[in-house]
Amino acid sequence: MNAKTRDVIIQFPDLTVRREDRLLIAGPCSVESRDQVFAVAEVVKEAGFHFLRGGAFKPRTSPYSFQGLQEEGLRILKEAADAFELKIVTEIVDANHLPLFQDTVDVLQIGTRNMSNFQMLKQLAGSGKPVLLKRGFAAKVEEFLLAAEYLTSGGNEQVVLCERGIRTFETATRATLDLSAVPIVKKLSPLPIIVDPSHSTGRSDIVRPMALAALVAGADGLMIEVHPNPQKALSDGYQSLTIDSFREFVVEMKRLWPFLT
Amino acid sequence: MNAKTRDVIIQFPDLTVRREDRLLIAGPCSVESRDQVFAVAEVVKEAGFHFLRGGAFKPRTSPYSFQGLQEEGLRILKEAADAFELKIVTEIVDANHLPLFQDTVDVLQIGTRNMSNFQMLKQLAGSGKPVLLKRGFAAKVEEFLLAAEYLTSGGNEQVVLCERGIRTFETATRATLDLSAVPIVKKLSPLPIIVDPSHSTGRSDIVRPMALAALVAGADGLMIEVHPNPQKALSDGYQSLTIDSFREFVVEMKRLWPFLT
Amino acid sequence: MNAKTRDVIIQFPDLTVRREDRLLIAGPCSVESRDQVFAVAEVVKEAGFHFLRGGAFKPRTSPYSFQGLQEEGLRILKEAADAFELKIVTEIVDANHLPLFQDTVDVLQIGTRNMSNFQMLKQLAGSGKPVLLKRGFAAKVEEFLLAAEYLTSGGNEQVVLCERGIRTFETATRATLDLSAVPIVKKLSPLPIIVDPSHSTGRSDIVRPMALAALVAGADGLMIEVHPNPQKALSDGYQSLTIDSFREFVVEMKRLWPFLT
Amino acid sequence: MNAKTRDVIIQFPDLTVRREDRLLIAGPCSVESRDQVFAVAEVVKEAGFHFLRGGAFKPRTSPYSFQGLQEEGLRILKEAADAFELKIVTEIVDANHLPLFQDTVDVLQIGTRNMSNFQMLKQLAGSGKPVLLKRGFAAKVEEFLLAAEYLTSGGNEQVVLCERGIRTFETATRATLDLSAVPIVKKLSPLPIIVDPSHSTGRSDIVRPMALAALVAGADGLMIEVHPNPQKALSDGYQSLTIDSFREFVVEMKRLWPFLT
Repeated sequence: MNAKTRDVIIQFPDLTVRREDRLLIAGPCSVESRDQVFAVAEVVKEAGFHFLRGGAFKPRTSPYSFQGLQEEGLRILKEAADAFELKIVTEIVDANHLPLFQDTVDVLQIGTRNMSNFQMLKQLAGSGKPVLLKRGFAAKVEEFLLAAEYLTSGGNEQVVLCERGIRTFETATRATLDLSAVPIVKKLSPLPIIVDPSHSTGRSDIVRPMALAALVAGADGLMIEVHPNPQKALSDGYQSLTIDSFREFVVEMKRLWPFLT
Repeated sequence: MNAKTRDVIIQFPDLTVRREDRLLIAGPCSVESRDQVFAVAEVVKEAGFHFLRGGAFKPRTSPYSFQGLQEEGLRILKEAADAFELKIVTEIVDANHLPLFQDTVDVLQIGTRNMSNFQMLKQLAGSGKPVLLKRGFAAKVEEFLLAAEYLTSGGNEQVVLCERGIRTFETATRATLDLSAVPIVKKLSPLPIIVDPSHSTGRSDIVRPMALAALVAGADGLMIEVHPNPQKALSDGYQSLTIDSFREFVVEMKRLWPFLT
Repeated sequence: MNAKTRDVIIQFPDLTVRREDRLLIAGPCSVESRDQVFAVAEVVKEAGFHFLRGGAFKPRTSPYSFQGLQEEGLRILKEAADAFELKIVTEIVDANHLPLFQDTVDVLQIGTRNMSNFQMLKQLAGSGKPVLLKRGFAAKVEEFLLAAEYLTSGGNEQVVLCERGIRTFETATRATLDLSAVPIVKKLSPLPIIVDPSHSTGRSDIVRPMALAALVAGADGLMIEVHPNPQKALSDGYQSLTIDSFREFVVEMKRLWPFLT
Repeated sequence: MNAKTRDVIIQFPDLTVRREDRLLIAGPCSVESRDQVFAVAEVVKEAGFHFLRGGAFKPRTSPYSFQGLQEEGLRILKEAADAFELKIVTEIVDANHLPLFQDTVDVLQIGTRNMSNFQMLKQLAGSGKPVLLKRGFAAKVEEFLLAAEYLTSGGNEQVVLCERGIRTFETATRATLDLSAVPIVKKLSPLPIIVDPSHSTGRSDIVRPMALAALVAGADGLMIEVHPNPQKALSDGYQSLTIDSFREFVVEMKRLWPFLT
């Protein structure tokens, strides 16, 4: 049994996530401090989500922006994940970092800027770790699926796709969330696809309806940004839900659940 | 009471559509024959929808494509609407056609290619008819709302907006359905907004999930293409639901209803 | 002999513009006053250009923006054109305005927002006036050429195409000037194509190099915005050349001329 | 003296390319065989160009496409460059390949898919090699310049930018060549910028006018694909000039030269 079967999204020795469960991931954009991560991890666990996200190595447009806590960030994630029995999803930006990630991280995230870094994809194919591959913000669905084949043809079948918005002329949102990609991917590929309503919209005020819409469109899961104090976030605060708003979202999602299954 | 109030989408002497009801419109892309329109009108009525759509005057990219049945098309729509007690939504492409539409048509549709035909907008503002304004396929949300103000500032308050996809680099769909526009419009404007999953995706195989997602994202209604024989349609057959598929969609939608209200 | 022949771009009883001459048009975005238009007309004439542009009826995104001087604007254009022996190019936004334009205007301009207003195109096809058709800012080259066929198939062979930029994700310019469209159109169509570097870039500081590049790419002419006082312009001042800068451009263009022919 | 000065684009112990010289690069998309590369190198030398391009490591959208001759490709390039006294520009897709490139390659090319692979940029900053950084096909000019700062702030001042087209809705070309970026970059940055008319247009039939237009818009150089037999090319044949067509282009370019300097 593996990610290619119809009913399992991702599998660990101690956890199997089936399509009907959805792959539910939440956490801050960047790991900033132990307190921040623990505050979020607690509510992620409370919500029944199994996965904690948080960026330790951050690929930033400007070399002068905050680049992440790096190794220290991974240590904080690991401590929080152990304390709350969560799995860690975090971005890897260099295949040479694999040894650092090997013992800490459960799911390797490949970010939108690296979807076409095929060299890294080839190298991660052999890592033995599940991979969350985000869609390049200018990638067609076909190119997204072909990028995933750099992983699957290299022997890694635990690949989860993530729609995170595409670049268009519209400026009301950070990117344009392309929810149509969800049912299309499900027609073309056996791979599961989840949706990131936080990065795609870039607006915390519409994350909740778009997350619900994603599930109804058929998404196999969600990745949502939560921050205890979005106004003080070192990156992407304007798109993070507060802890209270995340809790309200979880209530809405649970109300929707019976219609999904 | 008018379209600007929070709880009424559109109002006629004999019909008031409230936000909680949703504005539900279905029909063929083009009016092709009496038989075709009657077959669709019957299922539209049976579904509990109140509005029949169908193009009589068709703005086509090429002057050599089918341009619509024109006056004959309006007559067929009227006959079907009378027979099944439905209201008619159809596109107007020239303000000089208003006298033709005055006694036949209930809602004037302004198509995506004419959203920025401000001269026509000004002229239709005084028509006394409700207007369905489709988003230009390259219009930002802000421009869409400003176009609507050509109607409202001209005295027409019965304006309904319609998201129908924007033009992007993605070729897997005809346009990219921008569902994020739905909650954004609802934050910025008192006007209702509905979604057209048929023209935006251009693919009948994903119309159903996208229509449901639109409702969950907060859309005040839907406009869906249905054709008794999509393979033989004179325009846009690849995006029309068959009658059977439309019926199945209505069942799905009704299952979701308790979540929406 | 007509616009369809290889060597004539546009023809009037008293003026024939050949491909080797280029169709050179300059003037302000909007007609604002007699003084403004006369100041520009003088330099346009001095430069050896034959055509004066200026908007009298302005299609503006917002109904609350300056909408043009309308009939008064046409009168000012006519007076200036007569004084300096220039031909007038100005935008028409409603086919019902044709009688107003009939005796005043030499070339009817169809703006980017009306390229797909096929109804107006059909009506202008019979006007007997040459038409300058601007590319829709979200139109593919193929759609641009098909829109022109609404004019040519309706009997108007004096059609000049104008590339004016397309809408993309780039925000450093108002639109993205698609100069590749110039050689492509010349391969696909007998119609002449000119370039508007002012509206496409939206930046007076790069209008001059882009205008020269357009000519080298094969453009059959240029349409350039000039304003005696761009900072006080009622529309699009940031993209207008000053009179001095326009004079310098003309010197550069004349230096380039020997390489063009 | 370095690339940051106004009048030097790139400098080697035995070759200084000044702005007035332009940086002229030509060669096949992929290195396919010794015969192919030698045939092209001969005409590149004959044209007076100093730089030979050719891909040895190819980042391909599909893992099943030709991935390049790799080390063997570098050897062939080196042999041809030595035989014709040319410098080599070739793409590097993994910083771990640096030792391979160190003795062979003169200019490291970073491809469009890796512009935002900031980790590789940081690693190449310390390589001591000049870098040709291609614009990401969905990068704004501002992001392009910030990516270059990963190189310059890391100590590498020999950075040359390359405009190669952006992704838009237009399908008549492979990408949309954004020539306006050339004068804009020159206003914002001391770095030189060249243009690749081959990858941007994807059409050999318009490469020549667009290359000339690029020079007139202010480009500091060109990178052009040439192949002895484009129809049999293993990648991108439809955009490569034949040897004869390249020769004709060189004649056109030399005719234009007096205007440029």
